[in-house]
Amino acid sequence: MRLSTYFLPTLKENPSEAQVVSHRLMLRSGMIRQTSAGIYIWLPLGLKVLRNIEQIVREEQNRAGAQELLMPTIQSAELWQESGRYDAYGKEMLRITDRHDREMLYGPTNEEMITDLFRNNLKSYKDVPKMLYHIQWKFRDEIRPRFGVMRGREFLMKDTYSFDLDEEGARESYNKMYVAYLRTFARLGMVAIPVKADTGAIGGDLSHEFQILAETGESTLYYDKAIEEFELHKLTGDIDADTISSLQGIYAMEEEKHDPATCPVAAEDLRTAKGIEVGHIFYFGDKYSKAMGAQVTGPDGKLVNVEMGSYGIGVSRLVGALIEANHDENGIIWPEAVAPFKVGLVNLRGKDEACTVASEALYQKLQNAGVEVLYDDREVGGGVKFANMDLIGLPWQAVIGPKGLEKGVIEFKNRRTGEREELSEDELLNRLTA
Amino acid sequence: MRLSTYFLPTLKENPSEAQVVSHRLMLRSGMIRQTSAGIYIWLPLGLKVLRNIEQIVREEQNRAGAQELLMPTIQSAELWQESGRYDAYGKEMLRITDRHDREMLYGPTNEEMITDLFRNNLKSYKDVPKMLYHIQWKFRDEIRPRFGVMRGREFLMKDTYSFDLDEEGARESYNKMYVAYLRTFARLGMVAIPVKADTGAIGGDLSHEFQILAETGESTLYYDKAIEEFELHKLTGDIDADTISSLQGIYAMEEEKHDPATCPVAAEDLRTAKGIEVGHIFYFGDKYSKAMGAQVTGPDGKLVNVEMGSYGIGVSRLVGALIEANHDENGIIWPEAVAPFKVGLVNLRGKDEACTVASEALYQKLQNAGVEVLYDDREVGGGVKFANMDLIGLPWQAVIGPKGLEKGVIEFKNRRTGEREELSEDELLNRLTA
Repeated sequence: MRLSTYFLPTLKENPSEAQVVSHRLMLRSGMIRQTSAGIYIWLPLGLKVLRNIEQIVREEQNRAGAQELLMPTIQSAELWQESGRYDAYGKEMLRITDRHDREMLYGPTNEEMITDLFRNNLKSYKDVPKMLYHIQWKFRDEIRPRFGVMRGREFLMKDTYSFDLDEEGARESYNKMYVAYLRTFARLGMVAIPVKADTGAIGGDLSHEFQILAETGESTLYYDKAIEEFELHKLTGDIDADTISSLQGIYAMEEEKHDPATCPVAAEDLRTAKGIEVGHIFYFGDKYSKAMGAQVTGPDGKLVNVEMGSYGIGVSRLVGALIEANHDENGIIWPEAVAPFKVGLVNLRGKDEACTVASEALYQKLQNAGVEVLYDDREVGGGVKFANMDLIGLPWQAVIGPKGLEKGVIEFKNRRTGEREELSEDELLNRLTA
Repeated sequence: MRLSTYFLPTLKENPSEAQVVSHRLMLRSGMIRQTSAGIYIWLPLGLKVLRNIEQIVREEQNRAGAQELLMPTIQSAELWQESGRYDAYGKEMLRITDRHDREMLYGPTNEEMITDLFRNNLKSYKDVPKMLYHIQWKFRDEIRPRFGVMRGREFLMKDTYSFDLDEEGARESYNKMYVAYLRTFARLGMVAIPVKADTGAIGGDLSHEFQILAETGESTLYYDKAIEEFELHKLTGDIDADTISSLQGIYAMEEEKHDPATCPVAAEDLRTAKGIEVGHIFYFGDKYSKAMGAQVTGPDGKLVNVEMGSYGIGVSRLVGALIEANHDENGIIWPEAVAPFKVGLVNLRGKDEACTVASEALYQKLQNAGVEVLYDDREVGGGVKFANMDLIGLPWQAVIGPKGLEKGVIEFKNRRTGEREELSEDELLNRLTA
């Protein structure tokens, strides 16, 4: 993509409305624009990151055996009256009356709808276990939306629902998702700490929040350092039940529930860090299946309420959370797995014909090699181009200037470390396609 | 994917609520389920088709130079008051009041929002031409939703918006989209007839509807047969302005506007067929830019209202329209480009160990070769399996039975032609990976 035609409206100044660094950087780097309180347009650069994250989330759901479907954003109020949550949900639910005066709502979550789908279509113990998920926009009418996409009103969520015959099966499904979540966040380049959590409005018996570590995090965590080591070593290949069980036994608490007096972790093993919640999983048994009559015939011919769980990842929130965890004073530093482009190509001297010829040639070669490249071919000075590339945070920068060309080299910069090397065109292509 | 675990709730009987064949077949084949009038869940099989179509639409938009972004579903009423369409849009607009009593709406289209984005971020003639698009769920509160996803209330639309300095540029953008649309529908395996159209609620000067041909179509078209020939031969490579101009000059009219007395086409060249509208493009000049102040500074330093166009494709509607054009009495017949799986593998005799061993082996080999395969490994009779495969309409069926195994062959059936061949496993793999 050529920057001269790309729709990337970057800002030099910090927007006054943005209180947190991810919000500031997303506005400045031209990733998003607000249209109403807590509602955003995802501009081309932001959308690419969002889709990259979404795809990693999807792949790990599929790997865990969950099947993707897509539920609509607008729901009928009737199902929520059946579950008892229509009144309970309060003002965060965006309530709508259609032209025929039917009560509708913009879904904040989908337990009711998926339970209804299940009861209408699946009847036998042979139909379970089943894990179904979708990645869809949700709406929560927050009283005070803030922090950009971290606490927006319209947000993209991946929500999975599991259906099992009994508690044992339901806990297996829960553990599959637990592992899928650790894998997802590891692929995004994050350490995620699973923290035992309250079940709140969803209800139920067992719940973990997944918090990624970031200095600017909203909550303070205390955890046994073993959890970090565990994740680094154990997250490849199949994970057996014992391993999951011991992982879930490792201490991790939010500050409000952490009591130094009773904490079982030795002081030298206890770590504390700030975290941002990016996922939440629940096992809630028959709370919805009982209320809504989602039953299957067991092997013995008797009807049983299915055992359910639900599992959310805030996909759009993750964009902000990743920036909170990956930035410096100059801008964003994207992990390779989610970067909107792999490399930024800077033509340092657009009026120098040799520079332009070399830049155009490298741009073509990178595209031919399938490397996602953003080519700054604009007629602006080198300082503006460098600042812009640092701001948008592509993992690598390739700079073509007159001095380098004389020596036959291109400057190759690692955005995260700041390390610069001088490479020949062939070396650079090898590095980016390896 | 194994059918024994796939969430594919097929129906034997025709659902009484479905009036058109695509709606019947989408319900019966387990592609969708209705949750409220005109609102559907896309089950895994249906979602795969929807995503395949969406991806082809996206690729052709990108090829034409349009840039993808994503606007939210919920919009503020203010922008629509500015353009004058808030009152004009009537009851089809789903109007919403949020917790702070602000007037919002579920976007039925995005001219206002994209014009606002443009005016806030782009200021110079150097910033145009620009084509921006998104693929997002829309809502139109139809008084009588019907025909399944063909006229739903919540539907997926691709909408592109073009911004140019002058009318000449705007017509070039219009023509790029015109060609992109013909290419898109050709890749979907359809003949699309571009028909001059009224501009209606969008407003403007120039408009074409794209109608794909289907016996069950809603409108009757009269057109010069040259248009079909044209499409077949001219839609590869770059298309020059003269070619587009002569293509746009070929006669094509809806029945209401077709007057045999004045029709310029000789009787032997005139064709008539039923069509389904799947796309609509508009050039409307400065209608929105003037009302909303979307101006750029021209090369002469003077401010000019940008010239705009908008271009829609009904992505979810296309799923139904493709079925209207591709089915027989046994079910759907997917064009290869959008099929949810390429081949259905039928194990004819699950209790015969040799059949099961051979089926499992072929299933593995197909997956390893990257062929999308749906494997019917259920413990049901062959008749049920054949009927099911015909219903869901995968392009190819591979049947493993005891008689074939004795001869060392697999039955390979073309769903569209019904033609059956006996192939060795190697031959079959070659055919499916060629």
